[in-house]
Amino acid sequence: MSDSRKSVRLGLVQTCATENPSDNLERQIALLRDAASKGANVLCTQELFLTPYFCQSEDHSFFALAEQIPSGKSTRAFCALAAELGVVIVASLFEKRMDGLYHNTAIVVDADGTYLGSYRKMHIPDDPLFYEKFYFAPGDLGYRVWRTRFATIGVLICWDQWYPEAARLTALQGAQVLFYPTAIGWHPAEKEHHAMQHAAWETIQRSHAIANGCYVASVNRVGHEKGAGGGDGIVFWGQSFVSDPSGQMLAKADHENECVLVVDADLSKIDETRTHWPFFRDRRIDSYGEITRRAID
Amino acid sequence: MSDSRKSVRLGLVQTCATENPSDNLERQIALLRDAASKGANVLCTQELFLTPYFCQSEDHSFFALAEQIPSGKSTRAFCALAAELGVVIVASLFEKRMDGLYHNTAIVVDADGTYLGSYRKMHIPDDPLFYEKFYFAPGDLGYRVWRTRFATIGVLICWDQWYPEAARLTALQGAQVLFYPTAIGWHPAEKEHHAMQHAAWETIQRSHAIANGCYVASVNRVGHEKGAGGGDGIVFWGQSFVSDPSGQMLAKADHENECVLVVDADLSKIDETRTHWPFFRDRRIDSYGEITRRAID
Repeated sequence: MSDSRKSVRLGLVQTCATENPSDNLERQIALLRDAASKGANVLCTQELFLTPYFCQSEDHSFFALAEQIPSGKSTRAFCALAAELGVVIVASLFEKRMDGLYHNTAIVVDADGTYLGSYRKMHIPDDPLFYEKFYFAPGDLGYRVWRTRFATIGVLICWDQWYPEAARLTALQGAQVLFYPTAIGWHPAEKEHHAMQHAAWETIQRSHAIANGCYVASVNRVGHEKGAGGGDGIVFWGQSFVSDPSGQMLAKADHENECVLVVDADLSKIDETRTHWPFFRDRRIDSYGEITRRAID
Repeated sequence: MSDSRKSVRLGLVQTCATENPSDNLERQIALLRDAASKGANVLCTQELFLTPYFCQSEDHSFFALAEQIPSGKSTRAFCALAAELGVVIVASLFEKRMDGLYHNTAIVVDADGTYLGSYRKMHIPDDPLFYEKFYFAPGDLGYRVWRTRFATIGVLICWDQWYPEAARLTALQGAQVLFYPTAIGWHPAEKEHHAMQHAAWETIQRSHAIANGCYVASVNRVGHEKGAGGGDGIVFWGQSFVSDPSGQMLAKADHENECVLVVDADLSKIDETRTHWPFFRDRRIDSYGEITRRAID
């Protein structure tokens, strides 16, 4: 059914996090309502919207921020909201799977309020101020898609966006839209690299749209968070965007402010684009086996 | 040895083909000499520079344009030239492998004139005016790199450029520079799509540089070729370019004229870029196996 729908309206919610998770959840819900009131029917939050980006330091106390899925408060809130508004919701949460085991996870809720399942971030970064390997076990659910009421969607998270393999493996399952909840920003001291870093980030994600002939919706955090790392923290660069299946930027959000980006995605363009650029037809699947090697040396 | 060299000067030769292969070879050699005189030490031709892009129609007579590798005239000419000038040459040729078996092939010649080997185009397109499946059997040599005197290089050809798998499998073998001899252009009647097509072409190739932290050098044909297809033919868009390992465009050639593009590539930037964007460290090689499937359905 979802494949026959020709258009879907995407709603990307880009926010600044405060120290108060309840406040962030309340504000997120208000912004999701705003997106739905503008006709958006598939909505997505940024990565870990419920809290500041706590991975700027390694602190055991932050594990208390995690919640269970789907029994936790946030999942229940989004299921209720999705049912009330008749929208699909993708939300990025800090998952406590069991004592001492945590994941960076996105939940997918269908438009009738049904919890459809989760994606657990597969590629976990570890860089100065992005100490995610301390907090998150690597995902073990693989790459997934969900046939929601409005579209077949896949979800990947932040660092995943640099890996063409992740996009490909999700698209091969039929994803029409790849969502990337994200928390990426600049170290204020590295200003000379900003334009290059941001261009690379847009380019790699637009390339996934091109290579796979699908929509890409990237939802990024915004605002300056000092963090507990002792330095200047991170300036999250916002600029959430949607790319069409030929890599064209359909819309882009502000780099400083909280906002809702509502974008129409004509799903019939997927078949049209892939028919004219028949990349899937010509994949040399007999020759890709060694992609599972760390290096070919 | 090649890995310790810090800089290499790339020479990209972008030409307009005439109907006369001898003329095209002579002009190519003159332009390669020009590039070498400007200090370039790793040189590359566009795709099938020796002839007009004959794949605009399916005509058995064009098979006579092919030559054997390495015993044919062109390979011998490039080996002699490479030895004389002390440069590495990558040249794209129409290979006759045996009676009735042809490939779209690139040869690699080291700076002492040694023929190092060939890459046979793995992904073969077939679109209106690009009837390559009629002429070329799919490559059976896989993805390859060569440790030349000046750098470790890989070669992929045109349609390959849309496949992240091809770039990855070449980079995993240690390629510092990915060369893409190319013949891509516009149908004059589709002018409204030109900007989109060209942007996608640049984006996908810059994304290979980013994902793999290596240089990408794309060498494209230029000029309007009417072809034997009966229509307006193809306007090859030139604009050969070199991207650095973070996806930044270092230099770009003209869209109308024959030219030589000489660009310095600092090979130490590869390690620096990959260390700061450690994508190779975090690849989930345990999760990529299904990339060898046509679709995951």
